Amino acid sequence: MTSLFVRACTRQEVERTPVWFMRQAGRYQPEYRKIRQRLGLLEICEMPDVCTEVTLLPVRQLGVDAAILFSDITVPIRAVGVDLSIVENVGPVVAEPFRSSGDLGRLRRLVPEEDEPYVARAVRQIVAELGDVPLIGFAGGPFTLASYLVEGGPSRSYRRLKGLMWQDAGLFHALLERLADLTVDHLTAQAAAGAAALQVFDSWIGCLSPGDYRRHVLPVMQDVFRRLQSLSVPTIYFGVETAGLLEAMAQSGADVIGVDWRVEIAEAARRIGPARAIQGNLDPALLLAPEGEIAQAARTIVRAMRGRRGHVFNLGHGVLPETPPQALRKLVEIVRQESQGA
Amino acid sequence: MTSLFVRACTRQEVERTPVWFMRQAGRYQPEYRKIRQRLGLLEICEMPDVCTEVTLLPVRQLGVDAAILFSDITVPIRAVGVDLSIVENVGPVVAEPFRSSGDLGRLRRLVPEEDEPYVARAVRQIVAELGDVPLIGFAGGPFTLASYLVEGGPSRSYRRLKGLMWQDAGLFHALLERLADLTVDHLTAQAAAGAAALQVFDSWIGCLSPGDYRRHVLPVMQDVFRRLQSLSVPTIYFGVETAGLLEAMAQSGADVIGVDWRVEIAEAARRIGPARAIQGNLDPALLLAPEGEIAQAARTIVRAMRGRRGHVFNLGHGVLPETPPQALRKLVEIVRQESQGA
Repeated sequence: MTSLFVRACTRQEVERTPVWFMRQAGRYQPEYRKIRQRLGLLEICEMPDVCTEVTLLPVRQLGVDAAILFSDITVPIRAVGVDLSIVENVGPVVAEPFRSSGDLGRLRRLVPEEDEPYVARAVRQIVAELGDVPLIGFAGGPFTLASYLVEGGPSRSYRRLKGLMWQDAGLFHALLERLADLTVDHLTAQAAAGAAALQVFDSWIGCLSPGDYRRHVLPVMQDVFRRLQSLSVPTIYFGVETAGLLEAMAQSGADVIGVDWRVEIAEAARRIGPARAIQGNLDPALLLAPEGEIAQAARTIVRAMRGRRGHVFNLGHGVLPETPPQALRKLVEIVRQESQGA
Repeated sequence: MTSLFVRACTRQEVERTPVWFMRQAGRYQPEYRKIRQRLGLLEICEMPDVCTEVTLLPVRQLGVDAAILFSDITVPIRAVGVDLSIVENVGPVVAEPFRSSGDLGRLRRLVPEEDEPYVARAVRQIVAELGDVPLIGFAGGPFTLASYLVEGGPSRSYRRLKGLMWQDAGLFHALLERLADLTVDHLTAQAAAGAAALQVFDSWIGCLSPGDYRRHVLPVMQDVFRRLQSLSVPTIYFGVETAGLLEAMAQSGADVIGVDWRVEIAEAARRIGPARAIQGNLDPALLLAPEGEIAQAARTIVRAMRGRRGHVFNLGHGVLPETPPQALRKLVEIVRQESQGA
């Protein structure tokens, strides 16, 4: 029996709306914070037992309809030898940022079984433990990965990355193509190990104008999703601040488009079109609000998607560290109740 | 004769598209950087002679069709006695953030002629020097002002501000209403001193879902623009990441809606509707690109707005500090040439 989550991703009929949360394993959990006292984020990703424990925790605690591999978008970049670290309260920092064509050589092709055997091992272990609950594979999108490599870390204006895109489109595309290979190979290994769906986190594409997105990024994403199609698992494509990019993202070939909270879900669905499923879109900050407010907003989303095939309930971005676990548990319940009755 | 800029704002016929740039006076100018070596940003705002010099500089150097009062959104907040400073590379920082109803008392009504006489003085001086070039008055939007007061400084998640909005809507609204008074009084003084248009910078409203924006912010903005209407100068309402909010913003009553680069201008114009002018929307980072790229993107915007009454060319946000002044001069030329021929 295909899981509820996969059926929603592939726009089949479902008895209720499936729900999971981006960053459902993370700093809001006391158990996770305890593990992080002794291990770094990337260390957890490289230790299959701990990765399994962390990935399963929210499934057991919240009763969500899917697990997502606990990971970081930089995992495969580090796996091919790029010197990159996660700095607390800053984010990924690259020791030597990518600035010229000579840097391309630093991004060799990923050989998952040799470079990151811990990834497939964790996936297999998690899938075995999950039983009927599907596991979502995890990777960053080429543009978002490139943003860290070129900027050297998080950015507000992405001026170096955009500068490269406009000044040397050839090099920019060569870089994105290498990162596309990395994304595809990384996700292929996860699907082969048992992942039931694959999400590409292209978090920062929303910094682009629709024209630049279509010209410089969309062709690469179409290639990524074309190659992932042969794996026969649904694919999800997510970014934030994408209200102006949704029509273009729907042309990427992904089965599901993830949307943030900055657009009404009915409007987003209209622009994505009926041929793609939609995932989202509650404001993560809302989980700090009183229960009545959370319930009202969640119900509004579920009702707006009633009658549309292909909706996966999620937040519009990752769970905030300040979120009370109880609020997430309650939200799962609300989505279940509201969508079941329909 | 009404200026080209004001005619475009009020959707009258124009012989070409007017152009100016948000933050056209700023760190990208060597002359400005030199002044900033001896004076802080807020000091400049409080010294009419220097403020005049800084405001006029880009008009003379770039040949833009409007000047904008050199200011900061925190000026009237400081003028009523709130302890707030601009920290280099951080932004506005409030010594004691607003957290409870007791803090409301710290926001007394602004009396422009007593609390900030330097504002009207600078406006009068600038207007006298500008001749035919119109001056745009400058103020922050209540929500964006509240974000600094409640968060205590810049924020990524706005969780405290949103928390207040959801947990104590009464206090949130009372705070926004006081800030609305501040915005209206601050702008009224500028119009009385000769400003030919007024722009409300509500930069961070894009962090809200459309539902929350409509419920918690739009009514306050409708009140602001209703009160400004009696001044008989066009009003501009601007924020970033607003691709999902444009229909709602068009209901604010502002004459012109400013849009960032994350949405195609034709799509934005369609959603704003024909009853409002539109301002925007070139990606500011594009000014770091080769001239051919800038020209192509600028022409695409001008052409998309051809035949639509009411377009003011601008960037989608402020000029970046790294921008070469020459690129802005060239952009002004391109917009002139491209729109003149039509």
